[in-house]
Amino acid sequence: MRAPKRDVAIIGVGTTKYGEHWNYSLKDLITEAGIKAIQDANIAGKDIELIVGGSMSSGMFVGQEHTGALFADYMGLNPMAAIRTEAACASSSVAMRVGVMAVASGMYDCVAVGGAEKMTDVYGSHAITTLAGAMDRENEAYFGLTFPGVYAMMARRHMHQYGTTREQLAMVAVKNHGNALYNPHAQYRRKISVDDVLKSQLVADPLRLLDCSPIADGAACIVIVSAESAKKYTDTPIYIRASAQASDTLGLYMRKDITTIGANVHAARHAYKMAGVTTKEIDLAEIHDCFTINEIISCEDLGFCKKGEGGKMVEDGETQIGGRIPVNTSGGLKAKGHPVGATGAGQLVELVEQLRGDSGKRQVKGAETGLAHNVGGSGSTSVIHILSRNRGKV
Amino acid sequence: MRAPKRDVAIIGVGTTKYGEHWNYSLKDLITEAGIKAIQDANIAGKDIELIVGGSMSSGMFVGQEHTGALFADYMGLNPMAAIRTEAACASSSVAMRVGVMAVASGMYDCVAVGGAEKMTDVYGSHAITTLAGAMDRENEAYFGLTFPGVYAMMARRHMHQYGTTREQLAMVAVKNHGNALYNPHAQYRRKISVDDVLKSQLVADPLRLLDCSPIADGAACIVIVSAESAKKYTDTPIYIRASAQASDTLGLYMRKDITTIGANVHAARHAYKMAGVTTKEIDLAEIHDCFTINEIISCEDLGFCKKGEGGKMVEDGETQIGGRIPVNTSGGLKAKGHPVGATGAGQLVELVEQLRGDSGKRQVKGAETGLAHNVGGSGSTSVIHILSRNRGKV
Repeated sequence: MRAPKRDVAIIGVGTTKYGEHWNYSLKDLITEAGIKAIQDANIAGKDIELIVGGSMSSGMFVGQEHTGALFADYMGLNPMAAIRTEAACASSSVAMRVGVMAVASGMYDCVAVGGAEKMTDVYGSHAITTLAGAMDRENEAYFGLTFPGVYAMMARRHMHQYGTTREQLAMVAVKNHGNALYNPHAQYRRKISVDDVLKSQLVADPLRLLDCSPIADGAACIVIVSAESAKKYTDTPIYIRASAQASDTLGLYMRKDITTIGANVHAARHAYKMAGVTTKEIDLAEIHDCFTINEIISCEDLGFCKKGEGGKMVEDGETQIGGRIPVNTSGGLKAKGHPVGATGAGQLVELVEQLRGDSGKRQVKGAETGLAHNVGGSGSTSVIHILSRNRGKV
Repeated sequence: MRAPKRDVAIIGVGTTKYGEHWNYSLKDLITEAGIKAIQDANIAGKDIELIVGGSMSSGMFVGQEHTGALFADYMGLNPMAAIRTEAACASSSVAMRVGVMAVASGMYDCVAVGGAEKMTDVYGSHAITTLAGAMDRENEAYFGLTFPGVYAMMARRHMHQYGTTREQLAMVAVKNHGNALYNPHAQYRRKISVDDVLKSQLVADPLRLLDCSPIADGAACIVIVSAESAKKYTDTPIYIRASAQASDTLGLYMRKDITTIGANVHAARHAYKMAGVTTKEIDLAEIHDCFTINEIISCEDLGFCKKGEGGKMVEDGETQIGGRIPVNTSGGLKAKGHPVGATGAGQLVELVEQLRGDSGKRQVKGAETGLAHNVGGSGSTSVIHILSRNRGKV
């Protein structure tokens, strides 16, 4: 994977609040986020030429496939072409990758990229059963494994191999809940303590309820254009400096080492090369904390600390706002919420707000460049985007 | 939508037979088609840089989402990036569009594009219920509408408005079954007569069993590269001259006129412009005949005849092999089969075989340029590709 032949920039973002939206259908969520992004970009709907929308499991959740056409229809944008992407919890980061390709290919100049998931008040089976479609159904899910179980095994092994402590896992949740206090889009704006985490219900040993990201409804949307045209629309375009992706086995049981996610390591190497930056230039990161252990593992895999030191890094406060590399200023999946198909796009919305300097009390001062890391399943898909106020070499 | 900045060509194709594969899982189907395409391209798996695979409803059919990563995993291609696309029955034509964008963007040089669906021996609900996820679930499917019902309404109105006859509908099925006799990949290699169609079981008046495409399992895969590098791989690259797409309302009840598919008309206009051809240069076409009426409506919408004359066109033999514009030489969805996520990729496989002159008894003599037309739902998505032995203006 190489850098696109034509640079791409973000000119507008929009998101719903994440949470249990009992009065909102999937269509309502998409429409709200889409209209907000179009308004933020200060364009008309008809200026958009293509829609790329991620949704993990709209079929199993609400009985609705064909959500690309659904987006176009309910946003009043027919006959615009519309594509749905799916890569489990990384569905909308993959949508962004397709959007980048669409603009870079010269086939489209202005693309709306986004994602949505309606996980409460659903059709068909239980959310946990549906989510297990992101793992190897035949060889894992049918035998009773669920995602808390997957990440519990990864946590247990990480604790065994590197001495990561139960308290360090809790500190990830405490930090992210602290950040979400200042995020109006977040599902849980409630401060918690390490003690709260340790006393919360055991889900899959060693993971407890407050180690787990919640079930949520939500949608997020981003408008992108070619970098050369971006200044026509806004004074503060945010440039997409890297869009990288890699895969690992679908099943956790196939991996040599479950304290690392191979796809993270590959995607990160490509992303830094594509953007022409190192971890030192990253001012903040949204990291896929579906369970607290994943923030720790992924910070290591992405090179924010040495392997095995992810727990210490959070304990030392390095990932707090004001720390060396603030992680999940939005509140992360843990506290902002995790409407799976929207999560990747939502991470990018957070970065754009931060890089524009619009994040209020959770603002990372002087943030120039940010990274978003979004995982599907147990890391079978890893997608990394690097955004910057600075276009880089042209 | 404009032509890509970098031309794209096909160097390899592979497909499973379509049919009821009781001994094949989704993974088996994908792997067989993928390996055949890689072998046909005469490359190694590691030469591929990206996988884009379409599947309509793998979640509802077999409980498995995240099928992009599944493709990479079971084809032994980790850590390669992999993207799933979904647009109902047009899922893998949309995968091809994303593949074209990926190569044209300069981010990837060699991409495997494909699609798969496992519709028999499935997990969860009935195939007909699952397929209804392609229509407006809330406003149509919940009230009992199924796809035979959708297309029956379109057929009835077309008969009323244009005098299309019940026999003309039957002639579509008869022609396509005749072509499938010579296609080793086809599900039904069985000659039928107009009388057989008229005497088959009534499904949704006026459509009878032999007007309907069947439930099938299958997969198809295509390897694409940049046009400038294609001759390094093969003496007979097939160039992708157009890749166009448009949307219409998800619900049929929202349309002004149900004797035409608006998305067809828009996609066709873009496709002919992008390829720099008119209908006169099209030597053969694969047209989405999910129900016989759709071949008639879509031939009209794509300009192969005047509006309302699609029935007469088939009656006059113009769409037969040897006729003015052979349609569905493969047997079409009707007789070749319709494993929904694979269908679009399978149409492209047929065109490539024809344009290479490899189609044996169903060969269209001297075929230079072909068109593939793939619809999602009731025409909420329409995708058109134009392929040619001739690269066109460079």
